[in-house]
Amino acid sequence: MSTSIQIIKIGGNIINDAKLLEEFLQSFQNIKGQKLLVHGGGRAATAFSERLGLKVNMIDGRRVTDKETLDIAVMTYAGLINKQIVSKMQCLGINAIGLSGADGNVITSVMRDKLPIDYGYVGDIVKVNADLIHTLLNQQLIPVFCPVTHSKEGQLLNTNADSIASAVAKAMSQQSSVVLKYCFEYNGVLEDLNDKTSIIQQVTKQSAKHYINSGVFADGMIPKIENAFKALDAGISSVHICGIKHVHQDNPGTSFIHSNERES
Amino acid sequence: MSTSIQIIKIGGNIINDAKLLEEFLQSFQNIKGQKLLVHGGGRAATAFSERLGLKVNMIDGRRVTDKETLDIAVMTYAGLINKQIVSKMQCLGINAIGLSGADGNVITSVMRDKLPIDYGYVGDIVKVNADLIHTLLNQQLIPVFCPVTHSKEGQLLNTNADSIASAVAKAMSQQSSVVLKYCFEYNGVLEDLNDKTSIIQQVTKQSAKHYINSGVFADGMIPKIENAFKALDAGISSVHICGIKHVHQDNPGTSFIHSNERES
Repeated sequence: MSTSIQIIKIGGNIINDAKLLEEFLQSFQNIKGQKLLVHGGGRAATAFSERLGLKVNMIDGRRVTDKETLDIAVMTYAGLINKQIVSKMQCLGINAIGLSGADGNVITSVMRDKLPIDYGYVGDIVKVNADLIHTLLNQQLIPVFCPVTHSKEGQLLNTNADSIASAVAKAMSQQSSVVLKYCFEYNGVLEDLNDKTSIIQQVTKQSAKHYINSGVFADGMIPKIENAFKALDAGISSVHICGIKHVHQDNPGTSFIHSNERES
Repeated sequence: MSTSIQIIKIGGNIINDAKLLEEFLQSFQNIKGQKLLVHGGGRAATAFSERLGLKVNMIDGRRVTDKETLDIAVMTYAGLINKQIVSKMQCLGINAIGLSGADGNVITSVMRDKLPIDYGYVGDIVKVNADLIHTLLNQQLIPVFCPVTHSKEGQLLNTNADSIASAVAKAMSQQSSVVLKYCFEYNGVLEDLNDKTSIIQQVTKQSAKHYINSGVFADGMIPKIENAFKALDAGISSVHICGIKHVHQDNPGTSFIHSNERES
């Protein structure tokens, strides 16, 4: 493993806030070595759907992607958000290149089974073309992935950005040492949501169970924790949940570690 | 000049019609050797603007791009249209990669002077990064350009697709032999608009003047003719205006030639 690659994921809370995005990009700029970004959707798709008078259909907190919702997702995620981030990066001297899964056939997916729940045009990732990503990185290009993939049969599909980040990380880890950082508005996973300094430094599977049982990890945090451990199990060297200003640091926010690595 | 590159431009009339686009892509698939596509905007931006109740402001037949119109242009051109074309190409086995000018800093532009007419967020091309395009082509990737560029200062700009095609062609012609084909709904430039078979095979600057004076070339055709000769003067090997089904042919539709090349 000759190279190390940092894979950073940002979500809607950062994308929706110009100041936070600016602060994040400055920290991203300071990451040394090979790196890439995966961004989520943010509010723009919902805002456009509302302005167009479309009903946003949610099941269990997940958006149902009908044909028109897919078009708006592609417009906002692959178009507006991706190109705005790429152009802001270029302004900072970061030679970014925006990608959907269709571009260079970099991420193929299949439409999710319609049973038990039909989420519509949502793709579950099948394959990541790690060779293309390595090629771009070796040309000093910084890939910027939006949460849109394709079926290779001409169908674009809405795809969860956390899933893209972990799938890309797993694929890249076959040839390189990969660090995966999920970046959000707090400086790490908090023990007490009312105390932003109560950052949990390290989480093992055992301590995660404890935090889930005691209600410290709840709601949207649980799938993030599960994703982090899945990534670790899949061979990713280092997984973190951290704040926007610390993404360039070696060991920011909350680190997910195997139990036997735990510092006592 | 070791390689030959075909640069194909398609406009709104093809993009707006699923059947024409399908026919075009099959002909594009049959082009041998290195190739790339530049696409225009089509009706989607206007349709979305209308649905959002925005006024489309035109001066002399040109759209004025205010901030909100720019956002919709980026969404539809770089998002919806570009990714739909790329995913359709991938389905045909064409390894396409969609690009705005911001991606890989491939096309930089400056915002057009506000005098005599303020067209808003419209970019005039300053530089094409031909090295990146060569790199992508050498990786067997097919670049697909949308009509959006950037200022390198964080500003995306709406840019005419014909201008992108000719600027890319000129930049690539420094290292390669370039063929430029403007593809549209007729099989060439017509001598008589009521007779779709009345294709003018060859146009020289001298015959173009004649056709303009006699009213055969009028309205939107005149800037296309001017662009074609500018490209020829800039060193592009061969310039054509042709139909969607013949784009893979060696010498399709109407060819623009220097007077001394004219077949008598």
